[in-house]
Amino acid sequence: MSGHGHSWSIEEHAAHVAELLAPALAPRPGTIPVDEALGRVTSAAVLSPVDLPLFRNSQMDGFAVRSADVAPTPTTLPIVGEVAARPSSPPDLAPGTAVRIMTGAVVPNGADAVIPVEDTTSDGDTVTISRGRSAGEFVRERGNDLRAGDELLPAGLRLGSRHLAVLAAAGITEVAVVARPRVSIITTGSELVPPGATPVLGQVFDSNGTALAAAVIAAGAVVAARAHVTDDPAELIAALAVPADLVLTSGGISMGDYEVVRELLEPRGARVGHVAMQPGGPQATAVWDGVPVICFPGNPVSTQLSFEVFVAPLLRTVAGLPQAVRERRQLSDAVVSVAGRRQFLRGRAAEGGRVVIASGPGSHLVAGLAASDLLVIIPEEVTALNAGDDVETWAL
Amino acid sequence: MSGHGHSWSIEEHAAHVAELLAPALAPRPGTIPVDEALGRVTSAAVLSPVDLPLFRNSQMDGFAVRSADVAPTPTTLPIVGEVAARPSSPPDLAPGTAVRIMTGAVVPNGADAVIPVEDTTSDGDTVTISRGRSAGEFVRERGNDLRAGDELLPAGLRLGSRHLAVLAAAGITEVAVVARPRVSIITTGSELVPPGATPVLGQVFDSNGTALAAAVIAAGAVVAARAHVTDDPAELIAALAVPADLVLTSGGISMGDYEVVRELLEPRGARVGHVAMQPGGPQATAVWDGVPVICFPGNPVSTQLSFEVFVAPLLRTVAGLPQAVRERRQLSDAVVSVAGRRQFLRGRAAEGGRVVIASGPGSHLVAGLAASDLLVIIPEEVTALNAGDDVETWAL
Repeated sequence: MSGHGHSWSIEEHAAHVAELLAPALAPRPGTIPVDEALGRVTSAAVLSPVDLPLFRNSQMDGFAVRSADVAPTPTTLPIVGEVAARPSSPPDLAPGTAVRIMTGAVVPNGADAVIPVEDTTSDGDTVTISRGRSAGEFVRERGNDLRAGDELLPAGLRLGSRHLAVLAAAGITEVAVVARPRVSIITTGSELVPPGATPVLGQVFDSNGTALAAAVIAAGAVVAARAHVTDDPAELIAALAVPADLVLTSGGISMGDYEVVRELLEPRGARVGHVAMQPGGPQATAVWDGVPVICFPGNPVSTQLSFEVFVAPLLRTVAGLPQAVRERRQLSDAVVSVAGRRQFLRGRAAEGGRVVIASGPGSHLVAGLAASDLLVIIPEEVTALNAGDDVETWAL
Repeated sequence: MSGHGHSWSIEEHAAHVAELLAPALAPRPGTIPVDEALGRVTSAAVLSPVDLPLFRNSQMDGFAVRSADVAPTPTTLPIVGEVAARPSSPPDLAPGTAVRIMTGAVVPNGADAVIPVEDTTSDGDTVTISRGRSAGEFVRERGNDLRAGDELLPAGLRLGSRHLAVLAAAGITEVAVVARPRVSIITTGSELVPPGATPVLGQVFDSNGTALAAAVIAAGAVVAARAHVTDDPAELIAALAVPADLVLTSGGISMGDYEVVRELLEPRGARVGHVAMQPGGPQATAVWDGVPVICFPGNPVSTQLSFEVFVAPLLRTVAGLPQAVRERRQLSDAVVSVAGRRQFLRGRAAEGGRVVIASGPGSHLVAGLAASDLLVIIPEEVTALNAGDDVETWAL
């Protein structure tokens, strides 16, 4: 029926794509500046090169003292100096004296407590302390947050601002992260013109280049290159020459004539066939010059859905991103489906955990897809569902 | 007790910050290329300039016919031409004839159905059709996805790949989006050295610049500038001269000496005081040359927490980003807190909906914060909680 030699279930094709992409998606470490690492994933644990805090410092503005000197209060002590939060190597504190100290400043050796300024009065030369403090109070010991050699961050962590902050606090400027896969995007078809052009009858705007580029970025990868080629195989060969970790194509793989991807790649061992899904039935894979090529059908909804089903989950895993939320909802509408194919309808979340079908089933309904926020999954064996029936949905 | 003239609840200060920032955060529209608009928020509804599909086209590879000619089947019709998916103005289809047609190709006037190739056999000159089709079958009518003038996308929509796809499909290359607030970040303190430097005793690495820059980006805004200044007010004046929609500062607002932010801004009308929270008590705001300045305390945990409490929610709203998830969890540990201040402890999510305290309460514990994934909120009036008690948590 398909005219192709092969047909597969979604799971079979997904497993094949995962296996084909595995080498390209194997974590490749690289080192980047900490200030550019937001959202990236650590490729190795980071050990602290320093103690944090770096040195014993004051938690308060006040006076550094020996706790023994302030055991009975009130007590008046001579002020013998001042330590501010800046480069400083204060002399040791002599017994029976106090040093004015600022938050974050070095606590002098000999001092073992800081008296907050609000528990003191001072005439400038002496300080009268109204409340004593035990040894250690308001003193931040060196290394009490983290010791040199301790794990600062684990491997496999998606870096948020607080993680970058602790790297900076430890003086680290570069961090080893998993490299983002570089994805080359090739849309095919002599009927396509770029948005902004003036199409003549028979031409349509290329939306798949925009859709795939954005979807690749949203899945945590980078766009290595973007090209549109006509039905001329020479153009496709040129586009495939651009360096990338993997290639995505749209169009040119079904059974009609002028199917440039199939024409070029099938004689060179491409795996071309039909997957039991709708939209998105025609699917292919190939390897070109050692680089995996994942080929989607060209109808816009088919392209976008194929990426979401077969490639996005793999990219998100590499990027440490959460997968699309899948949850069961109640259909607001009756639906019909084709036996033997898993159908991906497009819907919108509605109140009470329901889902409203928001688009016809056609694979050209790109506005219908944009108006949707859920995919509604109708299993292969189901041909009709009633309003109120339970369905699986995937968040878009 | 604070030594400052004012003290406020978290809600009072948050409302003040929101009011101060409202003009800076009022949606300012700007137009950007569609290919750069992923994650941005539309500032106006987008109306379609075209019908989608642009023209009546075939849903299948097969033969365009008059449905009346294939009512009794099998029927054999002469093939009078071919229409591929490319620029083409096919002649009208004469009664009793068929035209070979590709998916996406223009359906000739006169034809009202497409017979899929799998329901046909052909010797090249004629096609024998084994199954008839009704008028309209496998024909995509012009405008059946969307009509010119219809709303393509609503205002206030955070743009995902499917939304950019429909803009491209309609030929649109520029989209009006809400401008991202430009945030200037100034860290203060003569004790700070940049990560990568070699600190002497009394110096610490500046982690707040890194933390705030990343947090601003994560909240959907952009970093207009980043500076570190010492305790010299002239440096702060220079840093404040950089154009931005709002300024964030860290450090220099508490009651000690060498508090450069307070020293410069308080005589010029800054609002300086204490908020009933821990960490993060000292807080200030100012306006400098018409630009709002939000001043956080300098301890790293205080800085990061202050951003999360007072500024991040406002930026996320502008960016159309979800707010941090807040949910109640069971404490795994007993905790104590200070009466009269809302305490933000740092914890990690644990199984069974529990939360484990993952850090001491000190505002310098930047590694403890990095090791946490939840803030644990202890209300002002609570001084102790037991293991098993219920607490509010915010996701980091």
